[in-house]
Amino acid sequence: MKLKNVTAALLIASIGTASAAPVFDTPFYKTQERNQEQWQVEDKDIDAKLAELEKKHGKKPNIIYILTDDIGWGELGWQGGGKHRGTPTPALDQMASEGMAMWSAYAEPSCTPTRIALNTGRLPVRTGLIDVLWPGQENGLPTEEVGIAELLGEAGYDTAMWGKWHMGEEAEHSPVAHGYDYAYYGLFNGAPDGWQSSHDTYNQPTNVKAPFMDFPGNEEYLAQYGIDLSVSGYTEAKGEERQPILGKAGELGPDRQAAFEKESSKQMIQYVKDQAQDEDPFFIYWASYALQITGSAEHQDAEGVDKANAQASMMVQHNEHVQSLLDTLRDEGIAENTLVVWISDNGPMYAFYPTSGYSLLKGGKGDVTEGGVRVPAMAWWPGMIEAGQQPTDMFHVTDLYTTAARLAGATDKIPTDRVIDGLDQTSLLLNGEGHGRRDYMFHYKGSELGAIRMGDYKIHIEPSSGGLPHMDFYNIKRDPGEKFGGMYNGLYMVKPIQDFIGGHKGKMEEYPNRDTSETLPSNH
Amino acid sequence: MKLKNVTAALLIASIGTASAAPVFDTPFYKTQERNQEQWQVEDKDIDAKLAELEKKHGKKPNIIYILTDDIGWGELGWQGGGKHRGTPTPALDQMASEGMAMWSAYAEPSCTPTRIALNTGRLPVRTGLIDVLWPGQENGLPTEEVGIAELLGEAGYDTAMWGKWHMGEEAEHSPVAHGYDYAYYGLFNGAPDGWQSSHDTYNQPTNVKAPFMDFPGNEEYLAQYGIDLSVSGYTEAKGEERQPILGKAGELGPDRQAAFEKESSKQMIQYVKDQAQDEDPFFIYWASYALQITGSAEHQDAEGVDKANAQASMMVQHNEHVQSLLDTLRDEGIAENTLVVWISDNGPMYAFYPTSGYSLLKGGKGDVTEGGVRVPAMAWWPGMIEAGQQPTDMFHVTDLYTTAARLAGATDKIPTDRVIDGLDQTSLLLNGEGHGRRDYMFHYKGSELGAIRMGDYKIHIEPSSGGLPHMDFYNIKRDPGEKFGGMYNGLYMVKPIQDFIGGHKGKMEEYPNRDTSETLPSNH
Repeated sequence: MKLKNVTAALLIASIGTASAAPVFDTPFYKTQERNQEQWQVEDKDIDAKLAELEKKHGKKPNIIYILTDDIGWGELGWQGGGKHRGTPTPALDQMASEGMAMWSAYAEPSCTPTRIALNTGRLPVRTGLIDVLWPGQENGLPTEEVGIAELLGEAGYDTAMWGKWHMGEEAEHSPVAHGYDYAYYGLFNGAPDGWQSSHDTYNQPTNVKAPFMDFPGNEEYLAQYGIDLSVSGYTEAKGEERQPILGKAGELGPDRQAAFEKESSKQMIQYVKDQAQDEDPFFIYWASYALQITGSAEHQDAEGVDKANAQASMMVQHNEHVQSLLDTLRDEGIAENTLVVWISDNGPMYAFYPTSGYSLLKGGKGDVTEGGVRVPAMAWWPGMIEAGQQPTDMFHVTDLYTTAARLAGATDKIPTDRVIDGLDQTSLLLNGEGHGRRDYMFHYKGSELGAIRMGDYKIHIEPSSGGLPHMDFYNIKRDPGEKFGGMYNGLYMVKPIQDFIGGHKGKMEEYPNRDTSETLPSNH
Repeated sequence: MKLKNVTAALLIASIGTASAAPVFDTPFYKTQERNQEQWQVEDKDIDAKLAELEKKHGKKPNIIYILTDDIGWGELGWQGGGKHRGTPTPALDQMASEGMAMWSAYAEPSCTPTRIALNTGRLPVRTGLIDVLWPGQENGLPTEEVGIAELLGEAGYDTAMWGKWHMGEEAEHSPVAHGYDYAYYGLFNGAPDGWQSSHDTYNQPTNVKAPFMDFPGNEEYLAQYGIDLSVSGYTEAKGEERQPILGKAGELGPDRQAAFEKESSKQMIQYVKDQAQDEDPFFIYWASYALQITGSAEHQDAEGVDKANAQASMMVQHNEHVQSLLDTLRDEGIAENTLVVWISDNGPMYAFYPTSGYSLLKGGKGDVTEGGVRVPAMAWWPGMIEAGQQPTDMFHVTDLYTTAARLAGATDKIPTDRVIDGLDQTSLLLNGEGHGRRDYMFHYKGSELGAIRMGDYKIHIEPSSGGLPHMDFYNIKRDPGEKFGGMYNGLYMVKPIQDFIGGHKGKMEEYPNRDTSETLPSNH
């Protein structure tokens, strides 16, 4: 795989900005200033730890990011969900107890935006892709964005993805066009081979209607949008064209999603085995299918499973797949050289209740209340991440990008001509609780700034009222359910809040957001 | 203490109903019928285990019940609260991990009712005491009720209570009148030496007003209701009159509650040491003071404490006291002969937010939604309760009564002329998860039946609408936040629900509720 490295080196040379530092959002520099001394000490220590690990294993650490779909904060067993909700998650709970269980992890409020955030390290609003993509939409992940797989590929990683892509269906939007060496994937823009093709009512209470595909004019619709129901997914590899996988995930039955997941897991485990002793490290992006709506027949009779909830059997299957993946890493002797992070893409999609995810927080998918953006997450890296940690530190899905770059020794390959929102959280992982580097967030709802986080405080931005800037002000630490908001609580903070937002908007003017129309393919 | 046993024996003989079985509510007998075979096997095993323990220690097991005040489900560290909320609870979390962390424990919706339920094993509505008592109210725990301390005293236990009594202020309502050998207590009916006397704003955000005692006419009010602000609590022992403790808990400053707690803890630990090698087992009922509104100056600078939340420093103090108690049990070598159960009396009292408790569940203190009645609880008994359990089994605060009777070998001393709502949960404790014996509950709001539980289903009873009995129907296992109720979900269950309620009401007619007026002292 040396050819790729050569290409990467040439690319870097031609861009010529490799030595400049990444550009972060305004508040970051204040945090950095306050913590400079501590961070310098930590960073030296981190560099030493990583150098020692590299010496031992002869390569940079492998990185596996598992992005799940619509699983709410509180759903896993370690958060009081799991068996208590009829969806036991023992392997995910064990992963949490063997590593770091993050109670304050955040994603974007919906599917496409979170995928963009993870893959580019940037707020979706900056990329021009601000919302969930639907069938027939022609925009997608812009070529100009530097994806995480491109970055890691340039740093010498072998890269692969499995699962739900959902960042555009044109060739230039595909995983391979964005740096992945290999991909087995589906659900470009919500439909072709995705959950919409589940037309059975398997495992659902009788009051839930059969979804989507059984309506008058169905066939015209399928033809118009080029939906081929016999396609279960696509494979693609560098230098090869995208190939539809016919029937791979079984017939168009209710087990279609489960079958897709099974095939993904099988391939992924083989990949890990193949790569274990390779000279290059690997990066896997596993974006699991929607774990709801339809179930897994194979798992519906598992112990403790709520039979009336399709999501429960899918969670059991997912749990098994994660177990197999971690077991494989251990069996191959590469667990201590592999970081695995598991995170959900957003809160529960209640439209599908009762077969949906769930959270006790306020709101769900699509909202910038905690129920929409606060998600369960775990980080696992035996020997490197101390077991049993439950940090209170804030973590955002964009941080996965910048942290991966740091671990890969590729921070200098992060583009420097745009704002990067992801922060390097290596210190949180390796130094543990209290060493996180994030103390702010911007929660966008589409193109609108819906809420901000300043430390423990969250402020929902609302239209002005009574001649005052209207802000619903919450202490999220004390009030995670967002029950006790109100202007009066934060009146003394109006000026700092306005300055904070001003700094963000100023940076945005300096580095303007990409226009969505730019991302349309040239032949449209 | 043999005299007491003799008296008890005479009492039992005079009542003459000792050999009859307790009367439970209608649904219990159906559950019993379904599980008869399994229960018989379990019960034999339990008897053998307890006999072995008694042989080893030469007496029945000690029992300590800790009832806390207004702590919501989700507030402890093991539930995702604790340090994440700025109220670290390491000792309580360790207690949970060394024993049983109960995610499905329930209390009554407010202070007095839960205290009645724990002490009588009966739904408050049956006793005639249906709501929170306030200063000047003349009713209280009726003499005719057989309190848990009476029951255990008759079985040879030494009994003591510390903390917030709140079940009447007349002599006949006091702890000693209801079987406790010793009591150090306060807050009869909400005021005299309780939280209402906190007139400082220590440790509170500026938008919270100083509570209660600083108003025009204050002195007349105090005189009228006999409130003596120099009194910090009362002691009482068998054969002695109640004695006010002047200044024991310090001056009437903001630390008053903290000082009361400190004194309680000190006495309790001495009591445990004194009793450790006594020939009789002991029973402690520790009803902690309100852990909110005012803070503990001594603990406000503890690590991780949210300084703007008075409750946080009180929780730190409480945590320390629990730690000391468990440490003392271990040090005295009696841990494996002592069951300790910790449970909250109801959900958070949001009237005091932001210095109140908190829950992500719906509603709070006073409500029969989960936020009002579902509470954190732990059971600890090294060697007898397997560590690390997190059962899904339902547990109600009345169960503490009947379970204590079983452990004390005093089931035959439970009165048989009335309905007992508490079920014997010894099997859950000793045989572990899945061996709970409760699959139903009746949630009363004052004298009204507000909701029922049938297994995983909860039904809120509402006035009829549209010619149909109106019931909001929830699957609590899947929807603990009570977000997705509705008649339509449970329409097919209307008949079973009506039968279920009918069975309960029928039993209530057979064994009528006590009339509150009967509980008024005769001289009023």
